[in-house]
Amino acid sequence: MIPAAGREVRLAARPDGAADPSHFELAEAPVREPGEGEILVRNEWLSVDPYMRGQMDDARSAMPTFELGEPMGGSALGTVIASRSEVPEGATVVHLLGWREYATVDAAKARPVDLGLAPAPAHLGVLGFIGLTAYVGLTEIASVRDGDVVFVSGAAGAVGSVAGQIARLLGASRVIGSAGGPVKTAKLLDGFGFDAAIDHREGDLERRLGEAAPDGIDVYFDNVGGDHLRAAIAVLNDHGRVALCGAVSQYDKAEPDPGPDNLIEAVFKRLTLRGFVAIDHYPEVMDEYVRRASGWLREGCLHSEETVVKGIDNAVDAFLGIFAGRNVGKMLVRLD
Amino acid sequence: MIPAAGREVRLAARPDGAADPSHFELAEAPVREPGEGEILVRNEWLSVDPYMRGQMDDARSAMPTFELGEPMGGSALGTVIASRSEVPEGATVVHLLGWREYATVDAAKARPVDLGLAPAPAHLGVLGFIGLTAYVGLTEIASVRDGDVVFVSGAAGAVGSVAGQIARLLGASRVIGSAGGPVKTAKLLDGFGFDAAIDHREGDLERRLGEAAPDGIDVYFDNVGGDHLRAAIAVLNDHGRVALCGAVSQYDKAEPDPGPDNLIEAVFKRLTLRGFVAIDHYPEVMDEYVRRASGWLREGCLHSEETVVKGIDNAVDAFLGIFAGRNVGKMLVRLD
Repeated sequence: MIPAAGREVRLAARPDGAADPSHFELAEAPVREPGEGEILVRNEWLSVDPYMRGQMDDARSAMPTFELGEPMGGSALGTVIASRSEVPEGATVVHLLGWREYATVDAAKARPVDLGLAPAPAHLGVLGFIGLTAYVGLTEIASVRDGDVVFVSGAAGAVGSVAGQIARLLGASRVIGSAGGPVKTAKLLDGFGFDAAIDHREGDLERRLGEAAPDGIDVYFDNVGGDHLRAAIAVLNDHGRVALCGAVSQYDKAEPDPGPDNLIEAVFKRLTLRGFVAIDHYPEVMDEYVRRASGWLREGCLHSEETVVKGIDNAVDAFLGIFAGRNVGKMLVRLD
Repeated sequence: MIPAAGREVRLAARPDGAADPSHFELAEAPVREPGEGEILVRNEWLSVDPYMRGQMDDARSAMPTFELGEPMGGSALGTVIASRSEVPEGATVVHLLGWREYATVDAAKARPVDLGLAPAPAHLGVLGFIGLTAYVGLTEIASVRDGDVVFVSGAAGAVGSVAGQIARLLGASRVIGSAGGPVKTAKLLDGFGFDAAIDHREGDLERRLGEAAPDGIDVYFDNVGGDHLRAAIAVLNDHGRVALCGAVSQYDKAEPDPGPDNLIEAVFKRLTLRGFVAIDHYPEVMDEYVRRASGWLREGCLHSEETVVKGIDNAVDAFLGIFAGRNVGKMLVRLD
């Protein structure tokens, strides 16, 4: 039974600085029947992610810019309710058409997922692009090796919480995370197995990081930019590697923070800083990652956590909440 | 005939900010006869280099810190006048004992050079660590490929002038350089074969670089840091590579300039920034480099230029002149 219409969240205006609810619009749109090769998906989970803030601007971002008046994009998971492709009705798929109740999708661009491996939310998080981002950053980009000391910023967030755990699974001897506030830092130690946690709200990041890593750090997984990157450069050992994954501290600002003023140390220490976007490594690395991560999940050595907000009418709140630091782990919207 | 004493330039005080003549002392020291395995060298040429400024500080640098009261170190070229090793008297060698008229050197740490390949000054420049730095930065670090657009800052300097030429020899389709003032930018075009030259004193570096590189740049060889690095990040193409070689704009300042505030673009564009120090690649790459560069010199497609100052009593002026931009090509001191 194909419904006549469904709700969607559209980009209503481009922010100049911080995003707020006035930049979004919840609207109703007709549901289009699938054409040849297409499927109709009833979305059950929407992913909201910090990098979407960049896609709201009419400027260069890691991912394509969202169009004004069009729905916000991004990963969503749902059930196929009509199909004119090889994907059967009833299958669960992940697609990229984002913030809407129903999506008519090119079947070739939908990825069927196996709910036997893990529950639905995991496929938008630890087993999805979030997990792939952590894995690619630590393997292809920063080449974590046995015995490395690894520092992860934004470590209570979706990517960071997975990155810290995978770093350990890849052989890191010590894993240090930063997060904002005592609840999150406790979570790093108790929930995600970090060896040390730094509350960046207490300031003096460089000194704290130096104390947490008396032998320096070998790898920095950067989710934050700004003063975190400066502190990491100061504490990195020779031949250290930095995976530049994002800069949540920067996405939502009209004027960027100053950059690290100690980049000259990257010469002295022979550092490598490398920006990356996980989608470049999809699908080649995804199969390998899902296989390894499914094993880790099964064995209980990879812990996935989500912050769930209910209803598409709360999707904007969920998204803005990321910039206020209101999530632990992956922020998701559950549709009814 | 071994002289009784020779002059040397010592580090007299550590600068706080810019170096000036009060931080140096010209003094006389007894000449020590070579012991077993040593040679005594009468220096004829001294190398003065911007990175030595970092070695004057009691802080982390690419190279070891100079001791107060001891001679300034660095490359020097001279004739062996006494030997208790396999290196014969009369041989020409390069060693690292720096700013003095006579040096008693461990023969294993002196590199014999072939004046048949090129005249003496070239062995402290284009055929020495200067050339190796340019070559390693372009090959091992930034992997210049056929058709790349390459931007070199500090391009009229010792490393920069060689880097621009080698980039072309490695297949770059367009080579852009920056330097300070019209004399130097003219030199880039006429003397060193750059396709475009930017005078950074005219400001607005990002716009000028964008105009000089309408298709963007693929590789940035950074000798300067600061605003040059910011402009390069803005103009770099996806998967661009930055060889972080030094930051002459930073060495001589008490407080560092702010870092580039657009590092988030390194994520979007998947950039790699990599710091390096040529000595890490010595001697493995040196033989390969000297072989290739000797060929290029012979064929007339690699042009070496020096700014020569005469007399050890002018070594400090020569060194300080680098920070005032008074050299084209390699700054050298000729001893009598």
